[in-house]
Amino acid sequence: MIRVSIIGSGNVAQHLIQAFSKTADIELVQVFSRKATAVSHLIPIDKITSDLSELKTVDLTIIAVTDNAIAEVSKELSFKNQFVAHTSGSVSIDAIDSKNRQGVFYPLQTFSKSKEVDFKLIPICLEAQNENDFQTLETIAKSISNVIYKVDSEQRKALHIAAVFVSNFVNHLYQIGNDICIENDLSFDILKPLIQETAAKILKLSPNEAQTGPSKRKDTQIINAHLNFLKDDNQKEIYKLLTKSIIDNGKKL
Amino acid sequence: MIRVSIIGSGNVAQHLIQAFSKTADIELVQVFSRKATAVSHLIPIDKITSDLSELKTVDLTIIAVTDNAIAEVSKELSFKNQFVAHTSGSVSIDAIDSKNRQGVFYPLQTFSKSKEVDFKLIPICLEAQNENDFQTLETIAKSISNVIYKVDSEQRKALHIAAVFVSNFVNHLYQIGNDICIENDLSFDILKPLIQETAAKILKLSPNEAQTGPSKRKDTQIINAHLNFLKDDNQKEIYKLLTKSIIDNGKKL
Repeated sequence: MIRVSIIGSGNVAQHLIQAFSKTADIELVQVFSRKATAVSHLIPIDKITSDLSELKTVDLTIIAVTDNAIAEVSKELSFKNQFVAHTSGSVSIDAIDSKNRQGVFYPLQTFSKSKEVDFKLIPICLEAQNENDFQTLETIAKSISNVIYKVDSEQRKALHIAAVFVSNFVNHLYQIGNDICIENDLSFDILKPLIQETAAKILKLSPNEAQTGPSKRKDTQIINAHLNFLKDDNQKEIYKLLTKSIIDNGKKL
Repeated sequence: MIRVSIIGSGNVAQHLIQAFSKTADIELVQVFSRKATAVSHLIPIDKITSDLSELKTVDLTIIAVTDNAIAEVSKELSFKNQFVAHTSGSVSIDAIDSKNRQGVFYPLQTFSKSKEVDFKLIPICLEAQNENDFQTLETIAKSISNVIYKVDSEQRKALHIAAVFVSNFVNHLYQIGNDICIENDLSFDILKPLIQETAAKILKLSPNEAQTGPSKRKDTQIINAHLNFLKDDNQKEIYKLLTKSIIDNGKKL
């Protein structure tokens, strides 16, 4: 059985704790959390520590804290020559203090505490500095997910940016859709089947094949009518820029 | 049995033909298509006409053509005092020539010919000028969908704009994610579970609750690193504008 500890109590840490608790292949040895109550609903209290120096040596220590804290936390670890990985999309593998062996265990998903996810479907992007460590990561990742990728630090940075576009920015467009509905006495529910189908289409068609709408058709009459209708300057600007980008994209093909 | 005819052979027309063919409540009397071959795989050839003057009077004639052509097509109809509806999100009910009774039958979905959709889940937004006609629309809509809304022309315009944000623009962000993956030797498949989860989250959480990412956290270090990484000016501009919009949105709450 592979022994793993987790440092952190945020969204990613909590989802990892839940995923590891479900597999018999992994022994979750300890969780570091400044406040025990943040994770005490997920793991027995005797496995929670709020003191980094109390962390035991294990096969893999996963640092699942905010990006800015990774380097500092890794420096504070009291052990040496152990295998330590962070879970960030945007931080280089080198952020882990080199007194330990460095790795990355990046689950590419959007986590909210109040929404369960099926970890089996989450791509986990792995990076290590030797083959042996990579295999440890791979064994651990495969115990909770069916989708594993080898991704180096530069690629992971690109991937994280792509993820911001297809998830954070997409959700913000949902927000704008929601706002427009509310302003016009419409339920946001009307848009939900469209949102689901737009996401489902991408499983069968390329984004280029899936593109529809007035900007794709270069229907300037509709585009101008929409711009006239929008009163919010911010919504107007986003509408203009994305329309231009869709039209320019059509020219490239 | 309610008798319906359809004018048009595009995405919406084809999906409506398929949906009506599956229900016993509707008799699909005729389809107008300039080229019979565009719809001959969906309906018997003797029901296809390429001559508007050959269209019989039915309970509802649905004009499912491009927005710009609706007014002209409705003028060319040879009958009077019949019930005629268009399927557009952005065209007023008045575009239908007033020699016939005007209506709107707007299925709010993104249609691509090569992707099947479950019509039962598609919201159909209805508008008519009297209660009797509205009931006809409702009966027809209920025969193919479980989700019916009464939406007036002004609301429908707003809804169409919201749909552009949550579907057309969202798909374009998928396109950018795809492009970033390709530039960095990554498979777009890595992003697909994230795309699905981002859409699924919106069924349980409000867009505001579902928002995650560096702009939500106002993590300027990551934001600047991402902007430095992006080489494409267009991607950079979209990243900047949507980041600003997410940050401004956070201030409003």
